Amino acid sequence: MTRAITILGATGSIGASTLDLIRRERDKWRVVALTANCQAVELARLAREFSAEVAVVADETCLPDLREALAGSGIAAAGGAAALVEAATRPADITVAAIVGGAGLAPTMAAIEQGRSVALANKEALVSAGDVMMAAVARHGTTLLPMDSEHNAIFQCLAGNDPAHVRSITLTASGGPFREWSAAQLAVATPEQAVRHPNWDMGAKISVDSATMFNKGLELIEAFHLFPVGLDALRIVVHPQSVVHSMVEYRDGSTLAQLGPSDMRVPIASCLAWPGRMDTPCAPLDLAALGELTFRAPDEVRFPATRLCRQAAEAGGAIPAVLNAANEVAVAAFLAGHLPFTRISVMVEELLGRYAPPAPTTLDQVIAVDAEARSHARRLLELV
Amino acid sequence: MTRAITILGATGSIGASTLDLIRRERDKWRVVALTANCQAVELARLAREFSAEVAVVADETCLPDLREALAGSGIAAAGGAAALVEAATRPADITVAAIVGGAGLAPTMAAIEQGRSVALANKEALVSAGDVMMAAVARHGTTLLPMDSEHNAIFQCLAGNDPAHVRSITLTASGGPFREWSAAQLAVATPEQAVRHPNWDMGAKISVDSATMFNKGLELIEAFHLFPVGLDALRIVVHPQSVVHSMVEYRDGSTLAQLGPSDMRVPIASCLAWPGRMDTPCAPLDLAALGELTFRAPDEVRFPATRLCRQAAEAGGAIPAVLNAANEVAVAAFLAGHLPFTRISVMVEELLGRYAPPAPTTLDQVIAVDAEARSHARRLLELV
Repeated sequence: MTRAITILGATGSIGASTLDLIRRERDKWRVVALTANCQAVELARLAREFSAEVAVVADETCLPDLREALAGSGIAAAGGAAALVEAATRPADITVAAIVGGAGLAPTMAAIEQGRSVALANKEALVSAGDVMMAAVARHGTTLLPMDSEHNAIFQCLAGNDPAHVRSITLTASGGPFREWSAAQLAVATPEQAVRHPNWDMGAKISVDSATMFNKGLELIEAFHLFPVGLDALRIVVHPQSVVHSMVEYRDGSTLAQLGPSDMRVPIASCLAWPGRMDTPCAPLDLAALGELTFRAPDEVRFPATRLCRQAAEAGGAIPAVLNAANEVAVAAFLAGHLPFTRISVMVEELLGRYAPPAPTTLDQVIAVDAEARSHARRLLELV
Repeated sequence: MTRAITILGATGSIGASTLDLIRRERDKWRVVALTANCQAVELARLAREFSAEVAVVADETCLPDLREALAGSGIAAAGGAAALVEAATRPADITVAAIVGGAGLAPTMAAIEQGRSVALANKEALVSAGDVMMAAVARHGTTLLPMDSEHNAIFQCLAGNDPAHVRSITLTASGGPFREWSAAQLAVATPEQAVRHPNWDMGAKISVDSATMFNKGLELIEAFHLFPVGLDALRIVVHPQSVVHSMVEYRDGSTLAQLGPSDMRVPIASCLAWPGRMDTPCAPLDLAALGELTFRAPDEVRFPATRLCRQAAEAGGAIPAVLNAANEVAVAAFLAGHLPFTRISVMVEELLGRYAPPAPTTLDQVIAVDAEARSHARRLLELV
């Protein structure tokens, strides 16, 4: 029997890795919808290859190109935000929610409202809209499968266990490219230095988040929503080799950890096949060849981001969305050369002290908080 | 609701750890039978404390002492091999099979034949009698819970997964006290040096097995019976810190590992509460404080035991029982100062080449093979 899949964000790296796995067992899958922001030619090529029902570009101005590229294929073409949501409502056994940023919120919510399985790779869904999304997950009985390598590791280590038996959950962090840098070195770190991530190949924004450790802090907020163990039970440990992707310790003293290569196809495959397993071409883990795995406590003096994120998760309501928006604006300013590296977290903390809107209860309110927080953050930047 | 438990081998270290855990949640358990070899006073004390139905000494000459120590308690006292088996047939939700050596085989089999849960700590049950025991487990639909720290780790990492999805299972080995020793040093290793195990506190025989790595080889044979993944999928990695207790790698590239302190109460608690969890007083794992975990390939030139055990598992039938008997005789000779350390595995290999009886199909046949192998081994020793 084939399974129906929709990929929101099919031309990004998560989308490409997902399709790479599906390509390897083509007969087991039926592709419903593939979406992209504007990469019409690439999207059309994928839609043809996988015989998708519909292809959607989020940016409506790219729709004519998509139509042209799909001419004669029999595959429907659509464009714009409403079309994206419509694609996400088409029945699919599993939806991969991999649109980056706030644009992913509404289609992710539409997929959740189907009440089936959603493999979540969009960070904002839980960081900015965690309460709203998790309420929808509960209401619709949706199976939420975390695709992020850390959260997927935790999900695997929790399988079959009662969260009430968890003593702690530990997210591992590579520590980023500035792990060994002194405070003085961090103060003059450049964007070029920040985007060189030691273990994972990723975009500029997320590389800077890795360097500041906001990435790990945001994951802490996500974990707080995904796994009902309470904030005090959530820990972070620096593990430079990024082989152990995260861990769960139980009340009996057993810790289960998930290890693997730094290849997103591993957690993606886990989501696609869950509760079973599927093949990936990833090389076997060879611990003897690796030799050693090291661990150390995070340094929240040099890297205050995880502390700020923990505080935001504790405050709840709109605060994580404000933190996320402030961080995005600050990272953009850093990448543009307008803000020193160490001012990123300073600016985020400053905005958290100044702007505390009421808790959003709908996605629209989340989006409004996000926009308002960004404009506050930009004004703050002008004052720097 | 209380659960009924029987502990075969209640005065040994596994028995004591089991009772320590039960003592902490006394109201959840009803103790059916407690057995010991001959420690009548200690056994009677435990039987009184836990209000056991019956206390049994394997050595019938100790029964008068047991009767005296239990006088007026209302607890039945019994002695001898048949009484041991009778105790193991009394209905219990879970039986902890922790009698050391061949004496544990018949009562373990009786517990298996109840068709409930058996937490297995007796090594011979799977090393010498693996085919016979596993056939009984299958026939009676028994839940076999491995109590050994490595096999329990694998059991936890396999929970909820289909063994068909396993790529490999890796047993971790501390490498023993002679891990760093040269072949020349090993040739003159003394019993006193061999019994100093770096991570676990254990008896002389098992300490020597750890030093030769027969311990890990025997665990490989046990794993071969417990986990139907095939011998080629079973690996060993040397991990001196003994923090990772074992690992399972799946076809998608995910590896699940179980980590914990070197405290037998962790795997025992896992068995007692399975599929739930229970509290233990074991300290939380602090990887940052540990700093590093190291791994290396085993050296089968200096430590041929794992190779011999793999060959024995592959040969099957009576061969693992012969290997186990030969090793016990050789270790006793080493401990008595009659055999050099490096001759232990040489002698085992020699006996495997000389004595290959047909496959036993009953426990009695296993016991006969064991006795015959021991007498061959002793004769071989006289020739050394």
